[in-house]
Amino acid sequence: MNYRMILSLLGDVLLVIGAFLLLPCIVAVIYGEPELWVLLATAAGSGLLGGLFILLRPKRRRELHARDGFVMVALSWILISLVGAIPFTVSGAIPSYLDAVFETMSGFTTTGASILRAVEDLPKCLLFWRSFTHWLGGMGVLVFMLAIVPLSGESIYLLRAESPGPSVSKMVPKMRTSAAILYAIYCAMTLLQILFYRLGVLFGWGEMTWFDSLCLAFGTAGTGGFSVRNSGLADYSAYLQAVTTVFMVLFGVNFSVYFFLLRRRFRLAWHNSEVRWYFIIIFGAIVLISANLLLTGGFFPTVFQTIHHVAFSVGSVITTTGFGTADFAKWPEFSKTVLLILMAIGACAGSTGGGIKVSRVLILAKTARAETRHLLHPHSVEVMTMDGKRVSSEVIRGTMAFFICYAAIAVVSILLVSLDNFGAETSVTSVFATLNNIGPGLSLEVGPFGSYANFSALSKVVLTLDMLLGRLELFPVLLLLSPATWRKH
Amino acid sequence: MNYRMILSLLGDVLLVIGAFLLLPCIVAVIYGEPELWVLLATAAGSGLLGGLFILLRPKRRRELHARDGFVMVALSWILISLVGAIPFTVSGAIPSYLDAVFETMSGFTTTGASILRAVEDLPKCLLFWRSFTHWLGGMGVLVFMLAIVPLSGESIYLLRAESPGPSVSKMVPKMRTSAAILYAIYCAMTLLQILFYRLGVLFGWGEMTWFDSLCLAFGTAGTGGFSVRNSGLADYSAYLQAVTTVFMVLFGVNFSVYFFLLRRRFRLAWHNSEVRWYFIIIFGAIVLISANLLLTGGFFPTVFQTIHHVAFSVGSVITTTGFGTADFAKWPEFSKTVLLILMAIGACAGSTGGGIKVSRVLILAKTARAETRHLLHPHSVEVMTMDGKRVSSEVIRGTMAFFICYAAIAVVSILLVSLDNFGAETSVTSVFATLNNIGPGLSLEVGPFGSYANFSALSKVVLTLDMLLGRLELFPVLLLLSPATWRKH
Repeated sequence: MNYRMILSLLGDVLLVIGAFLLLPCIVAVIYGEPELWVLLATAAGSGLLGGLFILLRPKRRRELHARDGFVMVALSWILISLVGAIPFTVSGAIPSYLDAVFETMSGFTTTGASILRAVEDLPKCLLFWRSFTHWLGGMGVLVFMLAIVPLSGESIYLLRAESPGPSVSKMVPKMRTSAAILYAIYCAMTLLQILFYRLGVLFGWGEMTWFDSLCLAFGTAGTGGFSVRNSGLADYSAYLQAVTTVFMVLFGVNFSVYFFLLRRRFRLAWHNSEVRWYFIIIFGAIVLISANLLLTGGFFPTVFQTIHHVAFSVGSVITTTGFGTADFAKWPEFSKTVLLILMAIGACAGSTGGGIKVSRVLILAKTARAETRHLLHPHSVEVMTMDGKRVSSEVIRGTMAFFICYAAIAVVSILLVSLDNFGAETSVTSVFATLNNIGPGLSLEVGPFGSYANFSALSKVVLTLDMLLGRLELFPVLLLLSPATWRKH
Repeated sequence: MNYRMILSLLGDVLLVIGAFLLLPCIVAVIYGEPELWVLLATAAGSGLLGGLFILLRPKRRRELHARDGFVMVALSWILISLVGAIPFTVSGAIPSYLDAVFETMSGFTTTGASILRAVEDLPKCLLFWRSFTHWLGGMGVLVFMLAIVPLSGESIYLLRAESPGPSVSKMVPKMRTSAAILYAIYCAMTLLQILFYRLGVLFGWGEMTWFDSLCLAFGTAGTGGFSVRNSGLADYSAYLQAVTTVFMVLFGVNFSVYFFLLRRRFRLAWHNSEVRWYFIIIFGAIVLISANLLLTGGFFPTVFQTIHHVAFSVGSVITTTGFGTADFAKWPEFSKTVLLILMAIGACAGSTGGGIKVSRVLILAKTARAETRHLLHPHSVEVMTMDGKRVSSEVIRGTMAFFICYAAIAVVSILLVSLDNFGAETSVTSVFATLNNIGPGLSLEVGPFGSYANFSALSKVVLTLDMLLGRLELFPVLLLLSPATWRKH
């Protein structure tokens, strides 16, 4: 393990976080809030410590191994959550530091699960910081570092560990350019969403402050789901909710599609089977749940409103955002089961969303099909393809391993959370909601209008770890926890 | 598809079932029950139809392909359930034929899920037939056929389709000898269990009629779980319950171990990692659940009784038998989660039990571990071994495919059953309980003292299909349902 190199890179991370902590300071100045000093002090402390760590950087750089990269990524995500939680506890907004870490980890991992019962009690600057962690975490803090900090060959390992999806196709040869382009698309889309919100306000299609527009756009872009009102998104106008629906779904699309569109390679964008299936699943889920609600009756006054709220909830759950306009925890069991399946599937690889990812599900389905065929025709050779390209057996085996580990982690987490004895629906869906970085579960307790406040400390630690495992797609965290990683090699 | 050959083999199956239907006739004669005539008529009809089918047998036998074998096995299991259900409906004991098919499928697949609310209302001869289907289904109806009917080369495909487990190691070169030995062990162990029951009665350690002894031994041997009293096994003495616990666990052990023991190859028996893990899991589960119940308090008066009932329940659930002495549906959530995990794992491959099987879980765990290592050391070559032998990549891929299909079938089933809106616990655990051939679920509705009677017709069909899928380990049934199987080749 290259300890000095890892420490110095963690220094970079601390500097970056210190710099970003200055943004909520501006908000504090605007609203004249006393929490300004806490934020400034945390920013200064983080910057200073970061500077110290950077002094440790070895003169002659050594190559980082894959293991170093994974460990480094896992450590920096833990570090930013620990630092980002400080203002909440020191200011007294969230008295328990464990709760504050839960909330900040939920922010950075774009989960959106909250231990707060009433978000409007928080000062504006902390609410802003809370939503901004979504935006930062959405694209990945290290991708950001790569886009601005000059790093050499080792960056590939960092990016691979932080970026989601089974196989990030190299879009441009230089990693740094690639990271910069991704961030540019990300910023542009966030601005576009804010623009649509403001247009709605301008034309009188709904009421929304600038503050809310920014915070909700951050939450949507990162597919996070922290809202800034106690009522979630229920009280905004239908137009503003619909804008949110559309952008949630757009941020769940594989970003390489936007890259292809920018380069005018429309055929490549169109023939992306993951994105096609993503839209098919969304459409199918909306139809199934709307039918279920309409046939059961008594949920929304009109068919149009039913589809509106179902589309919002489906978009919110499959992209793992977790915003709520309606309390889907009260919907019939069939609808909730569909939502639970969407939770597990998640968004596209290479998007800001979480979950198993549509492409992984596709690979799993194709593998099962190929194996069944092989059982019938033992001498046939099955070649699996995706988007016309052959899927290497390495990708298949990696996907399998991911799926098995995912199932095992889910089982162990549910077991530990079930010690709280809140009922199977609460333990199962809270684990799914955190492991897939969604936020709200499907029981009233942890639903879109519930809170994670009542869980025991053990459950909170488990669920915090699940958020991290989900965001970093298991392996970096598993490596960090494995004794073999720390053995001398 | 070799239709004539398949039809003629189904004729053999009908003959065998017709012959076995004569056994409950004896019971009817002893107790002087009028259902004798229904049973005799069904036996005669089944035999006659079987004879007709056998006339179709082609003179020159052609080889059966793997596909034919799988389809043949799936069809014969459906056939025996349809025929075996007739006496229940014609006699009026179970008025709905769908319910009777559910009950008979539950019997043959050794599930033990029941739509009856009070079993004691049934005449003795039908209760006997119901329990006897467990015993027949446990070892596999076709294994029985192989043991007595002279069949040639194609038998390997039949046995492979019906026997559980990822890789049935060839114990002896001749398939028929192998089947005969398995049946001999099976019969001997059933007799041993009856002997232990009778010894208990003889020495005054508990009350049990001969009828009950036979029926419970059948239910235990097949890891089925139909009981003959409304109170399940709750009213028998502790000795009789303990005998049942021990034999449930013994029938969940890979039968090849008994074969090795018979051949005095103790080392081979001892070094079977599946069986070792099977006992480790049982022991761990007993410890965890007992601790949970004792710490929660209020379940059983003494520590000894707690362990007694927990051991019974753990043995009943992991071997997928499904007998009940205590209503574990009322236990705390942690205990129920442990039981749910045991349900999914199931017994050893090559036993009469259902579930994913311990050896498959081991292979999955080892694969995940090897892949994680491979991620760290991309140039290393990982060789997976089990019991010192190398696990072929074919077995690994087959296990993966099984796991994916299993998960997909579970999800679709839960979705359909959830339309009944009985609550997540009922739909999830009823699907697990049928797909793994356990019987009782973990909610009060379908728990060890509940019944499947309230489900809609759709759910009953889904759950019946799940029982069949579970017993035949998915692929034969999936092939039967796939349009490609029926296309001309």
